[in-house]
Amino acid sequence: MKLTAKTLDIADRGVLLNRIDARGIGVVEGDRLQVMNHANGRTVSAHVEMTEAMVGSGTIGLYAPIHCSLSVGDGDEVEVWEAPKPASLDLIKKKMNKRKLTRDETRTIVNDIVSENLSLAELSAYVTANYINGMDMDEVEDLTIAMVETGSQLSFSNRPIVDKHSIGGVPGNKISLLIVPIIAASGLKIPKTSSRAITGAAGTADLMEVIAPVEFTAEEIQTMTEKVGGVIVWGGSTNIAPADDQIIVVEYPFKIDARGQMLASVMAKKYAVGANLVVIDIPVGVSTKIRDVAEGRKLAREFIDLGERLKMRVECAITYGDSPVGHTIGPALEVKEALAVLEGATEPQSLIQKSLSIAGIAFEMAGKALQGEGYAMAEEILKSGKALAKFKQIIEIQGGDPSVTADSIPLGKHTHVVNAPWPGYVVGMNNPSLVSLARLAGAPQDHGAGIQLHAKTGERVDRGQPIFTIHADRPWRLKLAVEEGRRLMPVLVEGMLLERVPSEHHLG
Amino acid sequence: MKLTAKTLDIADRGVLLNRIDARGIGVVEGDRLQVMNHANGRTVSAHVEMTEAMVGSGTIGLYAPIHCSLSVGDGDEVEVWEAPKPASLDLIKKKMNKRKLTRDETRTIVNDIVSENLSLAELSAYVTANYINGMDMDEVEDLTIAMVETGSQLSFSNRPIVDKHSIGGVPGNKISLLIVPIIAASGLKIPKTSSRAITGAAGTADLMEVIAPVEFTAEEIQTMTEKVGGVIVWGGSTNIAPADDQIIVVEYPFKIDARGQMLASVMAKKYAVGANLVVIDIPVGVSTKIRDVAEGRKLAREFIDLGERLKMRVECAITYGDSPVGHTIGPALEVKEALAVLEGATEPQSLIQKSLSIAGIAFEMAGKALQGEGYAMAEEILKSGKALAKFKQIIEIQGGDPSVTADSIPLGKHTHVVNAPWPGYVVGMNNPSLVSLARLAGAPQDHGAGIQLHAKTGERVDRGQPIFTIHADRPWRLKLAVEEGRRLMPVLVEGMLLERVPSEHHLG
Repeated sequence: MKLTAKTLDIADRGVLLNRIDARGIGVVEGDRLQVMNHANGRTVSAHVEMTEAMVGSGTIGLYAPIHCSLSVGDGDEVEVWEAPKPASLDLIKKKMNKRKLTRDETRTIVNDIVSENLSLAELSAYVTANYINGMDMDEVEDLTIAMVETGSQLSFSNRPIVDKHSIGGVPGNKISLLIVPIIAASGLKIPKTSSRAITGAAGTADLMEVIAPVEFTAEEIQTMTEKVGGVIVWGGSTNIAPADDQIIVVEYPFKIDARGQMLASVMAKKYAVGANLVVIDIPVGVSTKIRDVAEGRKLAREFIDLGERLKMRVECAITYGDSPVGHTIGPALEVKEALAVLEGATEPQSLIQKSLSIAGIAFEMAGKALQGEGYAMAEEILKSGKALAKFKQIIEIQGGDPSVTADSIPLGKHTHVVNAPWPGYVVGMNNPSLVSLARLAGAPQDHGAGIQLHAKTGERVDRGQPIFTIHADRPWRLKLAVEEGRRLMPVLVEGMLLERVPSEHHLG
Repeated sequence: MKLTAKTLDIADRGVLLNRIDARGIGVVEGDRLQVMNHANGRTVSAHVEMTEAMVGSGTIGLYAPIHCSLSVGDGDEVEVWEAPKPASLDLIKKKMNKRKLTRDETRTIVNDIVSENLSLAELSAYVTANYINGMDMDEVEDLTIAMVETGSQLSFSNRPIVDKHSIGGVPGNKISLLIVPIIAASGLKIPKTSSRAITGAAGTADLMEVIAPVEFTAEEIQTMTEKVGGVIVWGGSTNIAPADDQIIVVEYPFKIDARGQMLASVMAKKYAVGANLVVIDIPVGVSTKIRDVAEGRKLAREFIDLGERLKMRVECAITYGDSPVGHTIGPALEVKEALAVLEGATEPQSLIQKSLSIAGIAFEMAGKALQGEGYAMAEEILKSGKALAKFKQIIEIQGGDPSVTADSIPLGKHTHVVNAPWPGYVVGMNNPSLVSLARLAGAPQDHGAGIQLHAKTGERVDRGQPIFTIHADRPWRLKLAVEEGRRLMPVLVEGMLLERVPSEHHLG
């Protein structure tokens, strides 16, 4: 059928057909159409959307990726016909029917995801089927490899390449800002790609962005790493494992975090940057993704197994996840805290010990330190100031100002201090509530927003003593957070006597 | 955040945000935004789509349903903020986690489907979860009721109201064109809504459209049925069980036909038109949806069980589905064959017997005929010409020409006759291949396109004797079908000797 083109400024790989023309061609919503520009012979495939009125019969609305690929303008004539369905649909149905996919089948699906041959609804069916029916380790391995192969890869001439990943769920987990410079200062390479917060208060990329640009191509990441030994960049702006970014979009509304998918997602990104020594931080606690140590150990074995299949050495650190790491939550506050430690501060211990432990594991895996001596080596690099010097090189090569100091980081100037309502002990900190408060105050978009903790679990506080301060860049954001803070009570102060059993409970 | 509106002619309930503004608001793809027009105070909720370039920072693209609801024009200012997620998302996640949904939970989901609060990707996750994890009969009942309640309903003052449904999968199944007039001629009411073919050669609505309009509102269907006793209309143009239409869109790419979903879909449409006596035709055969009689009986029990829960009497007819019904496939060909039978033709027996059997069951259920005498009653109504007279009333009230006769129906004038390549017996007919051929010839969009069978399974044919004729409205369509016919060989002719075992197979 020949139709007149109307260009539409929409980002989907779709076309808009009048219902009458759709019937004439024999396609319905969800089908695909081949669209051809006779003038230059170009043909593309597009998803069909239907309308009663937006475009009339005889006209076809071409969304941006389509009219750009075809070089078609308003009023030009295009020829259309029904396109075959992608092979992925039958393979996704196979997975819905609880059958195992082969490596080639997984590759076909991931190729179709990356080339946007699948609609979001079709991709959602794939993700849902994987979530419900699960993937065995063969399938996870195949998915990992397919995600790597369909994106950019770094290729260093010298190994080892070190990487680390935190499973997430713990606020204030700014350890990469210490680990990356410590490892790079030892002469090892660590091209660290990281994420922005989606539901959290600050991802590592959000932190680094306070002091340096974080958006680079894969080639730039490789060049910078070769020069200074390490980078801290945003993975989302590279073309590394791009299928994962699209999968995340459909997982997001349901907060799906399927085990196999998560393993493949993490390891594909590590594999694609060329890492062969990887440390995985698995925080365990009631409000993290992993509830207890037994579950943490199971996940650790899966990471190690997948690593062996990919010829990568993986070690895992099961860490304490019931309280925030350090005393700060939010981009600028966390960067200030990490910089202060690099500059020589000996507090907070939770941040320092966790960072040195993980860097130490990497040193032992790389043979830089003997078994049991990695922590001390990391500590020496930190205390000597070598890590701070390396961090400044990293900031500089990414385009930031290397003269930055902890004291120079601006915090949100609108603040509210929450004091202890009575004397007692901090008996609990609610991580999701703390994150929620930091987000209400503006984190991660407002760099200065967040929470400074003055007391942590187990500490004794007097009545009226500050327990935390909320920072915000904008007054109305502060107001929102303060109001919600009254309701959520994210830090609990109690006397040592938690409950008094009344005397009327007599025997008999 | 305040943004400048840019109207976009897209049918989705969406808005297009620049990535920078999306970060500023704190939303990502898949989130929802509240959009407010300060000028009139109107607020609507919309899905967020993101772009790097289509709209710049400070501008928001508003799709048609959004800018229409708000009465906003290009350049107007709107205020936006993050909207809460619909409760359905947690309920769909619950179903993904293999837990049973309550009636209220199902109602919440169906409400969100009908009011387009769920994206297609989210709806796809719901349908996939139902397909993989299944629904028990409580959930099927709840879904049926929710689909009924979220759409239009017919309400007749007098019962019984009869209805019938064929599970599908058999080409040439034009029986509703006989059953509806036979039942209406008896004085019973049958407001028959039917579908158009999506993957088949002709749905009942496609057939009826050859001789009369089929698009009516629920109110019109009720009025016409009250006047002449029956109608044959397209269900898709009514607002009856509209959730089902949206579910079908996401099921379609995968050809999902989940049992529970199918039961709810069929019965919701019957319930909504007020039917309380329903006959379900379950064709059984290798190329239909139901492979054997045992599976057909199981499905029949489920329909009957669901009917009891809804206070509807249901009987099922398990029918032969390995060959086409009658000798024709395609809109005009099928209408011509059905009209000829109403006019007195005594062939084809497969069509006549199936139609009379199902009409007879309805007569016995309604108490119009004694047990075992329904078939004879239906036959009498057919032979007496009362069914033909009633059919003409139905055609007329729907706006068609009641003077239509079998001979006056125009068939596709481009034809190709396929002859037997050698003498022998018709040993097999491949239903999917026959449908595929009819579709290539242009069915169901081209009314004249289809296949006329001259011989059916078991019949003896001489070499060169016609076995079927392909009809098409357009010559290039005929050419496509003829070429494909050579490859598919949808009708197999063989000698009685199917294989000759050569003599060299000696013992020892």
